[in-house]
Amino acid sequence: MHLVGMVNPPTSQYAENWRDPLGRADWLSGRFHADLARTLERGLFDMAFFADALAVPEDGDGDYATTLRTAGKGSIYLDPITVVSLAAGATSRIGLGATVSTSFVPPYAIARQLLSVDHLSGGRAAWNIVTSTTDAEARNMGRDRIDPPGERYDRADAVVQTVLDLWRSWEPGALVHDRESGLFADPKRVHRVPGGLSRGPLTLPRSPQGHPVLMQAGSSPRGRAFAARWAEVVFAIGDTEEGMRELRRELRDRARIDHDRDPDSIRVLQGVQPVVGWTDADAQAKLRALRERIDLPAALTKLARLLHADELDPDAPAVDALAAHRGATGSVGFEDMLASVSARRGFTVAELAVEQALNQLHPQVVGSPATVAEHLEHLFRGEAADGFVVFPALYHSSFEDFVAGVVPELQRRGVFRTEYSGATLREHLRG
Amino acid sequence: MHLVGMVNPPTSQYAENWRDPLGRADWLSGRFHADLARTLERGLFDMAFFADALAVPEDGDGDYATTLRTAGKGSIYLDPITVVSLAAGATSRIGLGATVSTSFVPPYAIARQLLSVDHLSGGRAAWNIVTSTTDAEARNMGRDRIDPPGERYDRADAVVQTVLDLWRSWEPGALVHDRESGLFADPKRVHRVPGGLSRGPLTLPRSPQGHPVLMQAGSSPRGRAFAARWAEVVFAIGDTEEGMRELRRELRDRARIDHDRDPDSIRVLQGVQPVVGWTDADAQAKLRALRERIDLPAALTKLARLLHADELDPDAPAVDALAAHRGATGSVGFEDMLASVSARRGFTVAELAVEQALNQLHPQVVGSPATVAEHLEHLFRGEAADGFVVFPALYHSSFEDFVAGVVPELQRRGVFRTEYSGATLREHLRG
Repeated sequence: MHLVGMVNPPTSQYAENWRDPLGRADWLSGRFHADLARTLERGLFDMAFFADALAVPEDGDGDYATTLRTAGKGSIYLDPITVVSLAAGATSRIGLGATVSTSFVPPYAIARQLLSVDHLSGGRAAWNIVTSTTDAEARNMGRDRIDPPGERYDRADAVVQTVLDLWRSWEPGALVHDRESGLFADPKRVHRVPGGLSRGPLTLPRSPQGHPVLMQAGSSPRGRAFAARWAEVVFAIGDTEEGMRELRRELRDRARIDHDRDPDSIRVLQGVQPVVGWTDADAQAKLRALRERIDLPAALTKLARLLHADELDPDAPAVDALAAHRGATGSVGFEDMLASVSARRGFTVAELAVEQALNQLHPQVVGSPATVAEHLEHLFRGEAADGFVVFPALYHSSFEDFVAGVVPELQRRGVFRTEYSGATLREHLRG
Repeated sequence: MHLVGMVNPPTSQYAENWRDPLGRADWLSGRFHADLARTLERGLFDMAFFADALAVPEDGDGDYATTLRTAGKGSIYLDPITVVSLAAGATSRIGLGATVSTSFVPPYAIARQLLSVDHLSGGRAAWNIVTSTTDAEARNMGRDRIDPPGERYDRADAVVQTVLDLWRSWEPGALVHDRESGLFADPKRVHRVPGGLSRGPLTLPRSPQGHPVLMQAGSSPRGRAFAARWAEVVFAIGDTEEGMRELRRELRDRARIDHDRDPDSIRVLQGVQPVVGWTDADAQAKLRALRERIDLPAALTKLARLLHADELDPDAPAVDALAAHRGATGSVGFEDMLASVSARRGFTVAELAVEQALNQLHPQVVGSPATVAEHLEHLFRGEAADGFVVFPALYHSSFEDFVAGVVPELQRRGVFRTEYSGATLREHLRG
């Protein structure tokens, strides 16, 4: 089983995290992120993974006031490249994933920053590939509007190919470093790259794991095609066990058939929000407390902002509100997921708003360490997932609870490592 | 006196550094850079500063083979943003400067990465502003060729203005973080930015020092105008004491007269390559050894590559060779400096090649700790410099020698701090 910790402070997946009176307020500091990475490394996680977006999210009128007032997700983002670089120095074994968009920065800059992290960490970097989805992001980056999804993915295909070519522009062994003869590098083993987006070569040889691991989370049909082609780690949000199983099967099949890849070279991880207590009853009480602290007017305002709606009727069926504002978020896959969960669970708008504030519709796993471990083991053994992306409700306590309580249970059941066997992230994922 | 350590492994300012049998070979690792930053912090340096360029340097035919074979400067560059981020976690007081070009990446991306480093480090980041100078760099970044210097600086002016506006897009105090009332940030104190290169706001509030320190090294007339407008730290390579003094006076005057700045808000630092020994004779022996180990054919090849010359007559006057290949490097100020030093010292081409391999024409300060400290004190008290950028010949031994030997001598003379009095880089520079 593979485990990844999702890092997204201060808003996290639980909207009221930042109001937790016991929570840390130093989420802009290096210490906060170093401690967090070390906690996950203590839990032998494959990777800590840092989210990103390139603008404070706006409502339909292009106004960011609501987001800022209510601590909407995306109010604050440190640049993930800087955070993973710092975490690289604070840890020695855990993988470190940075979200970087393909849409705005030249591939050479993307390639060099990620390969630098890979060197500095001794081969523990991953690239979470996103295309960005909003006009606000495009406008921050000097464009008028965001491209349609199809064009964004076409661009992403070309950018990822160029980044890979740049990462491989030095053949293995091209750096000779022969002090005696004075031969530093063998130019015959260092190459230009094709494609026209960059000429190459990079100013860096290959890293201890060759190059960073590719990670992706797109769930639209085009997103899945992209994942099957490139991704070594896919992060998904599954609504049902059968849905999880189908996605995993589809991605493995398409990787094998369409791209001649070993299906085990693509790890499909499902997002979960664990709520862990001493006993099952304790965990349920914790969950109740999390839910009761949600500010309903703020949650409704945030949902309206997300859907670019002026106002939403809290008692209307959520599926109707979603249909009426289709396309507002810029992400087809995300909107499909909202609609499918809302339909299955019969949410009103108010219920969707609360669920969104509670866990962003990530499946919750609630109970004692044994209960949580048993559920994850069940999904894993049932081939619904190769592992999980753990979304914390509260920083750092959700991760502390998981590492101290659930990890030993998973180890006892023989589904999770008891030590790192490899040195690089790719070795963790293949193991 | 202010001290900055220049970091540029593996080639450093001494071309044969990488062949040193006692030198570290792990210059792509995080450990190498963390150790280095800690060494400079032990020496109470204001800042460690990381160089960059965006391509393996090419000869006149666009071939990078010579550079790679001979370990030409620029063969290897880790991305500086990643290195300073890692160093931020490994240190607590020293400033950290990253070189980032204004020519290729949207200002929003530049602003957010640097302000992220500033947050993660608790207010210790600096931006070394460069415009990039070569077609090879432009081609790596998806362009056909590099713009002429005037256009590059015009672009840099616009980019720096936008980056500053983004850094200030959150007013002080805009992040309220009131857990009781639920007010996260005050949208009335968070603003769009003018200028059309980005819309803003950034996803980050101000840092502990407000925003990163601006640093610049251009020495052409246009470069000096740019420095007088923006730079808080200027790094120069002076050939004579009087030339150093004139530059400092000019920059302070222009900052005050043209831009209504406090002259003390611009610190002019001179690059020096110290060679420190137990005694003066030991240091001279060290210097002889460094010089004798220079591979003359490689040095000549590198100089020809730099000047885009097919071949150079080693016995010809260097000034003639420089005049014949004027414009090859893309940097007016750099070529002026080469020509002026070559003329004053009457270099042949071979002598210029050796000097370039030895120290890249940075003035050397050779002697016992007392001798080196006395020379630096003389320049400082004579208002030739506000401090120095220390270029190591060998990693890390040149820095170790300087910190262990010269820093205590400077302290004894009362020209250098005995502890950090402030917490941020801007406080170090103002102190």
